[in-house]
Amino acid sequence: MALRGGIDLGGTKIQAVVVDAEHVVLGQARRPTPTTGGPAGVADAIAAALREAAAAAGVETADLAHAGIGSPGTVGAAAGTVSSARNLPDWAGAYPLGPELRERLHTPVALGNDVQVATDAEAALGAGRGHDSMLGVFWGTGVGGGIVLGGRPWVGRGGAGEIGHVVVKVDGARCPCGRRGCMEAYAGRAALERHARALHDKGEPTELFKIARKRGRERLTSGIWAEALDRQDPLATKLIDRAVAMLGAGVASCDNVLDVEIIILGGGLGVRLGQAYADRIADAMAPHLFFSDRPPPVVVAALGDLGGAIGASLLAPA
Amino acid sequence: MALRGGIDLGGTKIQAVVVDAEHVVLGQARRPTPTTGGPAGVADAIAAALREAAAAAGVETADLAHAGIGSPGTVGAAAGTVSSARNLPDWAGAYPLGPELRERLHTPVALGNDVQVATDAEAALGAGRGHDSMLGVFWGTGVGGGIVLGGRPWVGRGGAGEIGHVVVKVDGARCPCGRRGCMEAYAGRAALERHARALHDKGEPTELFKIARKRGRERLTSGIWAEALDRQDPLATKLIDRAVAMLGAGVASCDNVLDVEIIILGGGLGVRLGQAYADRIADAMAPHLFFSDRPPPVVVAALGDLGGAIGASLLAPA
Repeated sequence: MALRGGIDLGGTKIQAVVVDAEHVVLGQARRPTPTTGGPAGVADAIAAALREAAAAAGVETADLAHAGIGSPGTVGAAAGTVSSARNLPDWAGAYPLGPELRERLHTPVALGNDVQVATDAEAALGAGRGHDSMLGVFWGTGVGGGIVLGGRPWVGRGGAGEIGHVVVKVDGARCPCGRRGCMEAYAGRAALERHARALHDKGEPTELFKIARKRGRERLTSGIWAEALDRQDPLATKLIDRAVAMLGAGVASCDNVLDVEIIILGGGLGVRLGQAYADRIADAMAPHLFFSDRPPPVVVAALGDLGGAIGASLLAPA
Repeated sequence: MALRGGIDLGGTKIQAVVVDAEHVVLGQARRPTPTTGGPAGVADAIAAALREAAAAAGVETADLAHAGIGSPGTVGAAAGTVSSARNLPDWAGAYPLGPELRERLHTPVALGNDVQVATDAEAALGAGRGHDSMLGVFWGTGVGGGIVLGGRPWVGRGGAGEIGHVVVKVDGARCPCGRRGCMEAYAGRAALERHARALHDKGEPTELFKIARKRGRERLTSGIWAEALDRQDPLATKLIDRAVAMLGAGVASCDNVLDVEIIILGGGLGVRLGQAYADRIADAMAPHLFFSDRPPPVVVAALGDLGGAIGASLLAPA
């Protein structure tokens, strides 16, 4: 029985799964990403999460055939390093996450890009099955993209799929990346929170921060945005409407370049807001698609929140 | 001696070449694209241009191993049809350009997308040699894109590479395609001419139209723009500066998605304005590139004006 581990390392949470040969999830665990302790602290938390998932599956991590990690930042797959992970705490330079985890977990470890492994999982097991080309749109803290063309991942020189930084408005809003007018500057949850706070400080009424306090959250999570939208909160509605419009323009731009068969919407906000918002993004794309008579379908990631971790479990160690 | 014919069918001109097995151009001819007579008139003009190029090479078209056509619009390569060619006169429905030309030329005929064959030619014989991935940016009447990834053309569902319709400014200028805010709405020669005319009608001084009259041209050709820039014409300078800025944002967006090794600048304006403008576009891309520490080089198409026709000669008939 060849069990595998998979870990989705995000800026706010670590999701671990243990799956069997048929990719069925036998155990899972979720932990917050530590905000202190640097890369070593993150490695400790990952190991703890996978141990917990393994225990839930009735095994130890040493029993796993291998474990895969989907990581943000720049992944050096061969050396097992992660660098430039700006959403992770005190992550300076290239940290040998692979070797560090192999030591903690006693099983071979493979590293991949978080967004790309989630896209590969959807391609192999989820909404992309049967399609030769697809674009995964991961709408969460930022906006990431995973690309499959001709049945194979396209990663460019290691940095392809940065769809969040497609410019939708020259000289537009400041993006968390420091540039201007990126799609993420309007649609990413980090940017949305900043806009919401600024407008609230200027006196615009909103329940967003009240809901956050009630839930004991410092950050505006996807669930908080969803609740505010359900309540027809005017500020949340206005900002999400703009995000949808900008996602429409930016994702349509990507499709004018790539012309894929299907677009898969994942990420914290994408999965939480669901197919109704996938449909809204499709509508927002329509005015910008060059071949408007045959738009690609936009569907929510079938593996939902676990796609990243399941995708990571598909990574093969060198 | 296996000679081949190649034709670049453009909105304003038809370029024909006859090449040998080493891709050396033995004969060439250029004709204006007819503005009346519909598809049949265009087919007649193509045949006449290739006959002239063949005569210059000392052969007849029946002596050619085959001829390839790089065409705008949507190419049905198998049936040899061209449809949706909005820059060609009275081109309604799918016209069987391949069969019509085979009849006129007495040699097998293959059809391909104009921009893609020019990119393939640069990849095989020009500025892209030795590179595994590239984006061809064809800056002319419109702005087209040709994509090579992993050493192979990427055409999507037949419509990839429409980089001119990447949205650089949501709710921005009206594009000749009818949409708003496309890169082509600021950078394509058709859009530039429309802006120039509107501003000139409002009283902004420019020598653009004086130069055109002197040259006996109704349209503002690439040469006319180049001459006006040489003379530091304020209106031409302002509009081309904006075009460069928008090309910077739009091409950087494409590269944030694709992460290619090299960007090749072709098209009438691109080839005419040359490497100095390729450098300006690279500078304009810099603020928008997500991986700004390793920008792709931007180089002018090595095959220049003949790239499209030489690329078409590489097409193999079915």
